[in-house]
Order: sequence, then structure tokens, then C-alpha cells
Amino acid sequence: MQALRDRLARITDLNHSAAILEWDQETYMPEGAEESRARQVATLRSFSHELLTDDKTSRLLESASPESEIDIDLIRVTRKDVEKATRVPASLIGKMAVASGRSKGAWQKARATNTFSIFAPHLANIVDLTIEHAEALGYQDTPYDALLDLYEEGMTTAEVTRVFADLKDRLVLVVKTIAAAPAISNAAVHGNFRHDAQWAFGVQVAKQLGYDFHCGRQDTSAHPFSTAFSITDVRITTRVDPTFFNPGFFGTLHEAGHAMYEQGIDMALEGTPLADGTSLGIHESQSRLWENLIGRSLPFWKHYFPQAQKAFPEALGKVDLNTFYRSANTVAPSLIRVEADEVTYNLHIMLRFELEQDLIRGKISVEDLPREWNDRMENWLGIRPSNDSDGVLQDIHWSLGAIGYFPTYALGNLMSTQLFDAAKRAIPDLDSKTERGDFSDLLQWLRKSVHHHGRRKSSGQILKDATGSDLSADSWMQYVHAKFGDLYGF
Amino acid sequence: MQALRDRLARITDLNHSAAILEWDQETYMPEGAEESRARQVATLRSFSHELLTDDKTSRLLESASPESEIDIDLIRVTRKDVEKATRVPASLIGKMAVASGRSKGAWQKARATNTFSIFAPHLANIVDLTIEHAEALGYQDTPYDALLDLYEEGMTTAEVTRVFADLKDRLVLVVKTIAAAPAISNAAVHGNFRHDAQWAFGVQVAKQLGYDFHCGRQDTSAHPFSTAFSITDVRITTRVDPTFFNPGFFGTLHEAGHAMYEQGIDMALEGTPLADGTSLGIHESQSRLWENLIGRSLPFWKHYFPQAQKAFPEALGKVDLNTFYRSANTVAPSLIRVEADEVTYNLHIMLRFELEQDLIRGKISVEDLPREWNDRMENWLGIRPSNDSDGVLQDIHWSLGAIGYFPTYALGNLMSTQLFDAAKRAIPDLDSKTERGDFSDLLQWLRKSVHHHGRRKSSGQILKDATGSDLSADSWMQYVHAKFGDLYGF
Repeated sequence: MQALRDRLARITDLNHSAAILEWDQETYMPEGAEESRARQVATLRSFSHELLTDDKTSRLLESASPESEIDIDLIRVTRKDVEKATRVPASLIGKMAVASGRSKGAWQKARATNTFSIFAPHLANIVDLTIEHAEALGYQDTPYDALLDLYEEGMTTAEVTRVFADLKDRLVLVVKTIAAAPAISNAAVHGNFRHDAQWAFGVQVAKQLGYDFHCGRQDTSAHPFSTAFSITDVRITTRVDPTFFNPGFFGTLHEAGHAMYEQGIDMALEGTPLADGTSLGIHESQSRLWENLIGRSLPFWKHYFPQAQKAFPEALGKVDLNTFYRSANTVAPSLIRVEADEVTYNLHIMLRFELEQDLIRGKISVEDLPREWNDRMENWLGIRPSNDSDGVLQDIHWSLGAIGYFPTYALGNLMSTQLFDAAKRAIPDLDSKTERGDFSDLLQWLRKSVHHHGRRKSSGQILKDATGSDLSADSWMQYVHAKFGDLYGF
Repeated sequence: MQALRDRLARITDLNHSAAILEWDQETYMPEGAEESRARQVATLRSFSHELLTDDKTSRLLESASPESEIDIDLIRVTRKDVEKATRVPASLIGKMAVASGRSKGAWQKARATNTFSIFAPHLANIVDLTIEHAEALGYQDTPYDALLDLYEEGMTTAEVTRVFADLKDRLVLVVKTIAAAPAISNAAVHGNFRHDAQWAFGVQVAKQLGYDFHCGRQDTSAHPFSTAFSITDVRITTRVDPTFFNPGFFGTLHEAGHAMYEQGIDMALEGTPLADGTSLGIHESQSRLWENLIGRSLPFWKHYFPQAQKAFPEALGKVDLNTFYRSANTVAPSLIRVEADEVTYNLHIMLRFELEQDLIRGKISVEDLPREWNDRMENWLGIRPSNDSDGVLQDIHWSLGAIGYFPTYALGNLMSTQLFDAAKRAIPDLDSKTERGDFSDLLQWLRKSVHHHGRRKSSGQILKDATGSDLSADSWMQYVHAKFGDLYGF
């Protein structure tokens, strides 16, 4: 058992080292280092893959006698990891790496010049390799199950389809209702929000929510992200727009939510493969909970608005709480997913989920994609992209070969309200605590119910144990009706 | 051959990855991560060591057919690396790591509380392990040869002794002469040197010397250093004192000198173990050349002083060039090596070289060390530390087990003037070029004579080929006589 533990610790160290190199790449690395850094990360990742899939690991997994509950979980989870890693032949991994390397550049060029045809052959190749990948991984019902399982272990296409189907019609209706209602002005979140003041305010609030800067830090990067190198080193990045409050502040809360999840993992799991988020959906539930259910709530701003006014006197000096709260929560159908509001966001995801499945099943071809994208956008959101850069070319995911990833964003949204409802049942005065800027009970509840377990519990098990229910769209729809019905009067 | 190249590339990637983790540790890492980071670095270093000393590497080294001159050097240099790495048993490496881990903490405590006895037993243990290490490595004349060879390959204790003996008496005399001469005021380099202005000025000058920020960057750390992750990613750190010009500015030039060396290595060596400085002495010659022979010279300040006055109007607005130049070049015996001036610095090193040898040969015991230190300081520099924190406890090196390292600092000083003399013969108008802020010919000469070769040439060979001479103290003594004779009138 100790030999197995040692081996898994080394694999974990290699993975975390690669993550450190990637963090540096996005934050501080000089431009000239691009090529050497790609090589170094690839070396660490392939070492880790070799160690994991080596016969010795399998033999240790077979012969090890677990000495604790953690050991039992360690063996169970690692067996699955090994199985997934060994099912895919090295030649296919190599082909996928080459394809996504080339494809990323083509996608960048296609997006910059608004020319889908530059990206199309690369995407077609990626779709073919993805199907090959799914076949290698194996699945019960449909190849898409295998892809989904990479990001949300145990989730099936059938279940996502069921939940999304339940959601789609209701949500399209809400979006139409809001679009027909009088618009709310978002003027209050635009203005002079000085860079330094945004940074300081974001850090201060993230600290008060519970993100521990003794074991974390925030830096600037082009695309905000959160990354963990150990339970005691979980970092976030952000990007500040000095004329617009939302991206910097809510981005910081979002990433801090991810980071608090990893900071809250049981220290007994430190250095093992169990010390990680259990799925992307659960991860996103944590970021969305802090960003939206706390950060965009009225109780939260009852506490923080006076401080925000002090931090941004030019922009907020003459704004009142209610105007600001409404301004931070406007809903409007828009073309770009990452800029979408709370309500419309899930429709962007469902669009991608459907298109990915249609591509994998061969129901549509890559050539059809721009038209299909635009048609569905128009159907669901009532707006049509005037060019592909604002449509099918907007996201990096497909160029990287990450097909099956998108659904986890929406699953995270749904899980966030399910968990939040359970937290409110456990902490009846949660709103008044939020109004006082006291988040300790909520964090403690999340620690106990979600964070602590790392990968020891599956996403489904965490949800079930914490909320008593399975995944469902009901809680989220109720939240949307309550909050946005109030704001938009329906 | 390709299999050997691939294997060495992976080893190099592991080493560079460890260096990235260490850089992060000194610059941005949150405090809480100390333990996990130590484990991650150890994992990468031990992987690299295992791969290097694995039978497979030796078999590849034996069977590979070199296809180029570079391949021949790659095999030769790697054979030596493997030999050194395999001679030391893993158990000893483990013992040394544990000892220096414990010793570092004891040294910090001893230094902070000025209590040598806290550190003494740890140092005694380190001396014992160092002797064991030297015996394992093997040597011709004396165990100290084996230690020296770790940092300055091919250098012998006899040669260092010869060169230092030649230097010591002459230098002690110069120091006494200067101590007896009227003191020069260093007031001009103390004052209001704003942090941001120092940073910007240092970066600007480093760029103009030739440090390429497209493949490098500067950050802040407690102890300035330079580190390379590839030929296209060579970074420096600095520490700025807003009331004292010298440490920040000359520190930046010093580290930029180290960095320009590694940036100048032949790109054909990229990703191989040959893409590294060939020895610490040659490395230090590059940092000292830019820091002292260029950066503290009158021609340099003829060009840069007007810009410095603009950058630091409060401190330098009313100072003239000559006063500033003299102020930046004052000589005074002092207790702390890292704060020592150009002239007295080498005496600090020679003191350590003698004491290290006496310890290794058992001529003095660890208990004798503080007294021996203070006596020799008094003899050579005319000052006696009033406490051990300003004496024998000042340097971290011994606590880390780095015995045999110190001499390379002085060797670097001597080599710097030897190389600079040769550069001046090749570039007759070097001074007037420096006065115009044009360093391109000098950099090009250093690239060609030193940097380009990486580890393909030994330190001795580089010196011989570039200057026509072997290591000697003459050139440096002439430099000291000319420059400081002029300043202090002797």
C-alpha cells in the first residue's frame, strides 16, 4: 500500500508541476518561451501518463492492502483513472495532440478574420478523432457518453438530455418574457472603476467570502482561471476592465469559488489523486454559487454596496443600492456565451450540447455548423449572429478537442441552486448573515457537504447526500422565476 | 543517437521544470505552499537523477553513434555527469538532503539570535557528510578537489591556491593603502531613489546592454538571482532599496550579466544538457563584467548619468558626474561579503576558501571556526566582527552543504578582467562605444567567445581560447591598481 501511495504521490507531483508551468505560461512567461514551455509541459504530462499506465501501477493496485477508508477510495478512483488512460492508445493521444496544436492556431486565425473555412477542416479532423477517442474509451448507449464521462464522471447523455429538455422550453419562455418586458438599465456598472480599486475591492471581498490568500493568490491573465498545485496552493487569475465593473468583480468571485472548493479538500488527501474536484459540474456549482447566488444577490449588496461606493466614488457616488443591484442583474439575449447573463447562459450551453451530439452522431456535418448555430440562436434567443466570429467561432473548446465539456457549465448552474437550497434549509438565517457579510456558516456547510470529500464521492453522490435529491432543473428554474420575476415583473 | 537525445531532452525538461518551481517559490508562491512545493521539487529532481543514472542511459551512451560535433560533446559531457551522479550512493544523497534541510533552519535561528552553538553541531555533521561526499566522488590530490569540481569542473585546489596566493598579499596591501587614504564620500548613492524609477531605469539599462526581455523578465525576490528554463526563457530577480541606489541597480546589471550568458547559448543546443553555463566561475565572470567593468566605469556613467539625474531628480539633481562616479566606487573594509566593494570582495572569498580547506582537512574544528574567522578578518581587512551573525554565520552556503562553491566568486572576478582585456584588444574603441551607450560589439564578442559554447567548452578552454592565457590574478590586480589608484591616489 505504501508503495502504491508513493507512486501516486509522484504522479500527482508531476501533474501539479505541469499545472505550475501552465499557470506561469498564462501569467508571467516571456513570449519567447512558448515553444520550450510546450515541450516541458508535454514531457511532464507524458511522464505522468507513463507512470499511471505502467504495469507496475496495475500490479500495485492489485496487490495493495488498503489500511483505511481513504486507501479504499484511492484504489477505486485510481483504477478508473488507469482504465481510462490505458484504453486510449498512445498513437491516438499523439494524433490528438498534434491535431489540437494545429487546430488552435487555425481557430485563432479563423476567428480573427471571421473565416470559418480556415477552421472547418481542422474541426472535421477533431470530430473524427473525438469519435475514435470515444470508441476507444467505450460506452453503453452513445459515443457522447464516453466524452461526457471525461469531464463529469458517471453522467450520461440520456440524463443530461432529460434535464435539459425539461429546462429548455421553460427557459426560452422566460427569456422571451424578459425580452418583452421594459429593459433595466445597466448604466450603473459602467463608468470609472479604477483598476487598482477594483483589484483591492475584489481581493478584500474574496478574502471575506473565505478564499485564503495564505494558500492562494490572484494574478492577471487574458482568460481568468483557477488552478491548484496542492490543497495549500490554489490560485486564481482575473482580468479587469477599468470602465466596467462586472467582469473583474464577478470574475474574481467566480474563480474564488472554484479555489475555495480545492482549498476545502480534506488535508488527509493532500498529495494524492483524491485531492481534486470530483467533476467539472460540481466545480462550476461552487463558482456559480459564490458568483451569482451570493455575489449578485440583494442581501450581499446590502452589505457591500456602501463599501463599493467608497471604492468607486466616481462611478457609484450618486447611485442607490437598488439601481446598482438591478444594473448588475440585467438580462438580455446576447451572442457571446462568456458575456451572457445568468438567465440566458444555459441556453448557450444547450445549443452547444445539441450541436456536439449532432456532429458526433453525424447528423450534421462541419459545413452545416455555422448555419445550424445561427438558426438555433435565432430560435432560442431571438438574435442571429451577423458573422461567425460572434457565432460558431467564439469558443476555444472545440479547437482543443474538448467536446463533451460544455454541458458541465449548465450542470454546474443547476447544481448550484440545488446546493444553495439545501444550505438555506441548514442555515435558516443565511440571508441575514449575508447581509452582515458573514459567510462562515455557508462556507462551513459547503466544506462539509462538498469540498471535504475531494474525489472520494462522485458528483451524483455529493448532490444526493447534500440535497437529498438527484440532478434536476426545478430548483434553478424556481430561482430564476423568483429573482428575475421580481426584477422584470412576471 | 536519437534515443539518447530524446532521453537527455526529457531529463533537461525535468530539471528546467524544477527550476520553474523554484523560481515561483522565490517570487510568487503563497506561504502556505512551502511543504508541498518542497515535495514537488524533490520529485522532479529525483526523477531526473533516476533517469540520468539508469542503466538505460549508460547503454545509450555506449551504443550511440554521434552524427555531429555537438553529438560528440553531448556524449562526453553527459558521461561525466552520469559518472558524478552514480558515484554518490543514494543513501548519502538522502542523508545530505536531510542534514541540509535541518541545518538551514538551525542556521537561520543561529544567525537571528547570534548563537553559533545552535548551528555548530549541524555544521559538523555537514562537514562529515561533505568529506564522505568527496571520497565518494573521488579526487587526485585532496578531497577539496572533488568539491571544487562540482562547481568549477576541471579546477584544482592547487591551482586556486596558486592564484589566490599570488593575489592575497598584493590585495591586502592595496586595501591597507586605501584604508589609509582620505575616504571618498558615498553620499551621492544614498537618498531618495524612488522604487518605480529604479525599477524602470534598471530595466531600461539592462535592455540596452543586451538582456532580451522577449526571452526574459525581472521580478522581485528577497535574494536576487538569475535562472534559466530554456535559452528563450532566462529570468532575473532583484531587490530595490528606495534609499540606496547600488543594490538595486548594480544587482540588476549583475543578474542581467548572468542572464545574457544563458541567452547567448547556441540555439542548436536548446533542450540539451549542453545548454547551460559551463562553470560557476565563467558565469560569475559575465555578471561581474557587466556589473563592475561596464556598470561601475566612468565611460558608462558619462553616457548614463544625465539619464540617471532625470530618473532621480531628488537624489542626483545637484550631483555632478565625477562625484557620483566616485560615490558609486568607494572602498572600505566591511564585515558582510554581499555588501563588499569590488576591491575587498575577493578577500572575503579567500577567507572562506582557506577555512573550508582547513575544515575538510581537519586542521581546524567547527568549534574553532568563529575565532579563526574573526582573527583572519582582522589580519586581512583590519576589522573584527563584534558578533558571529556579522561573521561566520553570515552566509547560507555551508548550511546548504555547499562547500567548495565560494572560490568560484573570486575566480569569476579574475576571469572577468582577463576576458575584458581580450575584448578591449578586439574592440579598440570599446570605451568610446560605452560612452555612447553602444554595447553591441562587446556583447557580440562575448557571445562568440563565451556564451555560444554552452558546456561544449570547459571553463579553462574558454579562457584560453578567448584570452590566450590561463587563469591568473595579474589582469585583475592591474585593473584594481589602475581604477582605484586613480580614485584613491596611489
